[in-house]
Amino acid sequence: MITVEDARALLFDLVSPLNAETVPLAEAAGRVLAQNVSATRDQPPFAASSMDGYALKSAEVEQHAMFKVVGESAAGRRFEGTVGPGQAVRIFTGAPVPDGADFVVIQEDTDRRGDLLTITDDPGSKTNIRPAGIDFTVGTKITAPRILRPEDVALLAAMNIAVVPVRRKPVVALISTGDELVMPGETPGPDQIIASNTFGLKAMLENAGAHVRVLPIARDTVSSLGTAFGLADGADLVVTIGGASVGEYDLVADVSQNLGMERSFYKIRMRPGKPLMAGRLGDTAMVGLPGNPVSAMVCGYLFLIPMLRRMMGIEQALNPFQRAKLAEPIGKNGPREHYMRAVLSDDGLRACSDQDSSLLSVLAKANALLVREPHDPARPAGDQVQYLPI
Amino acid sequence: MITVEDARALLFDLVSPLNAETVPLAEAAGRVLAQNVSATRDQPPFAASSMDGYALKSAEVEQHAMFKVVGESAAGRRFEGTVGPGQAVRIFTGAPVPDGADFVVIQEDTDRRGDLLTITDDPGSKTNIRPAGIDFTVGTKITAPRILRPEDVALLAAMNIAVVPVRRKPVVALISTGDELVMPGETPGPDQIIASNTFGLKAMLENAGAHVRVLPIARDTVSSLGTAFGLADGADLVVTIGGASVGEYDLVADVSQNLGMERSFYKIRMRPGKPLMAGRLGDTAMVGLPGNPVSAMVCGYLFLIPMLRRMMGIEQALNPFQRAKLAEPIGKNGPREHYMRAVLSDDGLRACSDQDSSLLSVLAKANALLVREPHDPARPAGDQVQYLPI
Repeated sequence: MITVEDARALLFDLVSPLNAETVPLAEAAGRVLAQNVSATRDQPPFAASSMDGYALKSAEVEQHAMFKVVGESAAGRRFEGTVGPGQAVRIFTGAPVPDGADFVVIQEDTDRRGDLLTITDDPGSKTNIRPAGIDFTVGTKITAPRILRPEDVALLAAMNIAVVPVRRKPVVALISTGDELVMPGETPGPDQIIASNTFGLKAMLENAGAHVRVLPIARDTVSSLGTAFGLADGADLVVTIGGASVGEYDLVADVSQNLGMERSFYKIRMRPGKPLMAGRLGDTAMVGLPGNPVSAMVCGYLFLIPMLRRMMGIEQALNPFQRAKLAEPIGKNGPREHYMRAVLSDDGLRACSDQDSSLLSVLAKANALLVREPHDPARPAGDQVQYLPI
Repeated sequence: MITVEDARALLFDLVSPLNAETVPLAEAAGRVLAQNVSATRDQPPFAASSMDGYALKSAEVEQHAMFKVVGESAAGRRFEGTVGPGQAVRIFTGAPVPDGADFVVIQEDTDRRGDLLTITDDPGSKTNIRPAGIDFTVGTKITAPRILRPEDVALLAAMNIAVVPVRRKPVVALISTGDELVMPGETPGPDQIIASNTFGLKAMLENAGAHVRVLPIARDTVSSLGTAFGLADGADLVVTIGGASVGEYDLVADVSQNLGMERSFYKIRMRPGKPLMAGRLGDTAMVGLPGNPVSAMVCGYLFLIPMLRRMMGIEQALNPFQRAKLAEPIGKNGPREHYMRAVLSDDGLRACSDQDSSLLSVLAKANALLVREPHDPARPAGDQVQYLPI
């Protein structure tokens, strides 16, 4: 048996960053920028007023000074002339500051009658002008890799980058295995249950940026599993669920090895989710998850999401653990790392009372995995512990 | 001018929870459950083994005891007989425990030769049996409203809920206004800039669960704005960007009032984003955001996302503020609430040095809005402050 960290290192060796593709800006949010992009223009492209008011010469600004209003500069329609001595131009927020002017008096500090403008209040020393290029200039870079947030999308738009180079989405094929499984909406026999892992993992992996293909349930026969692997063709990552344990009916290892998979490991010293398998089938990475629903989901967080992040070229493939105080004491841990279902609330972190790896109802109430090292001692309430938000 | 809190209360009055619709389970992740749903079955539907091993009678369990293996129970294919005295049934994880058996000895504690099984190690007192219904039983509820996480989707699947009642996605129509704007990919004139708010807000609001329609840019004319409002037909929320200020070219208020909008307020005592307008046009809520990119995005976080959450029936419409320590001192605040762009890192929260509301490059570097109350005093490093993660 190997540690979670060692397992992750081996899993990372199975994948590499995918190619870049380009998408329209409107579809770039949430994708991973694949290469640096540069602004194609200055922002603002001209000195711009930051207020509604009057543009004039700073040397002439003083209380009670009077000016003749000679024109107007609006956003999108500048004043084409030059502001001379004793002259002012009506200006609006975002509009180009006309030649000859270097100061904007805000309208609240003025009185206007016809063409005659008087500065009625002390306008202070702030020019209310944004210099050209103060936000960015031609060549200002947005550096890759980064997951594009709404703010990045707005900035890309302002830079006039209409087509964005992003990493291709990893394609994941999910294969649930087992004679006991039927799909939601079917009527299970008395010995059967509903395939739940497939749907939970699909939601989880799509959240993390993957394109997920749900394949038909594979039965516990060589031919059914072979068919499922065939349908996975073209995926970057094939994930089997169930059938990776040691029972006679766990055929996934046999079938995948017959298909040429080089198996890279088998068991991880952790709870939940001990049996886990991985390898490569040609260009495709393959991971075999345990069939217990909670084990499969926890392994998804610990292994599959970091693999996806690695494929998408994200530098920090592991979401770092957070720290919180225990709201209730916890007992000592055994010899395996334990990722306990837990609830984080205002007063701290509480491990759920039943940690059985079959209990989806407990997992659905949890919002954190409390991380226990092997042989971690019993801990009182108030102790700082590590957790992974889920 | 009114406070952010008062503004939000008025905005909430403009919207109400949308109707429910049903979606296939595979599309339910991230949606808001609209009504309670109940399990249609017990899970597990039978007493099930939690380990690979042998099912037999607990009264006969002791080290060195011997049994005859009379059959096998696999997941999906139970042993149909009854386990009698001195008998054992090979059993795998998740398989039904046969009648007559009430204990599973794990295979690691046994030795098997042909049909003869010997308990070689003390199996302890744990039965390794999951009682029927220990995860959930017929009628166990998942309560609405809740945003469906991957864990919820897995639980819904296990409950055999193949079609899920969720709130309809709010449809938001975005109208950018201004003669100075062109769309990304176009070639702007010397007085023009690229429409960036539309794309940033689209990404933000889609993240929050909306379906966003980007409408053509409205020019600063009554007819162009009228056309845009016409194209917004059918939206639950119309958001205009720009044109809500006091300049002569800010036509949004005039046009929307001519269309019959009851304006509910106009200005909010906050930075950035002071001018803001809202009202109703028939069944449609309308919000006019300021045109400065940072103001528009901050108003999106503070006002639009809570409105969407209200429309989706989420009880906690406001994402609560978080708390962190200042990594650097901040100066005193003026008379308006201030949502400062800030960066949260391991050593605390740092306000960005330039808070001008035109700077998208600053916003894209920020990951938090530091919340300042009106007249908040200067604060030293180490002070606890409130922030909203972005």
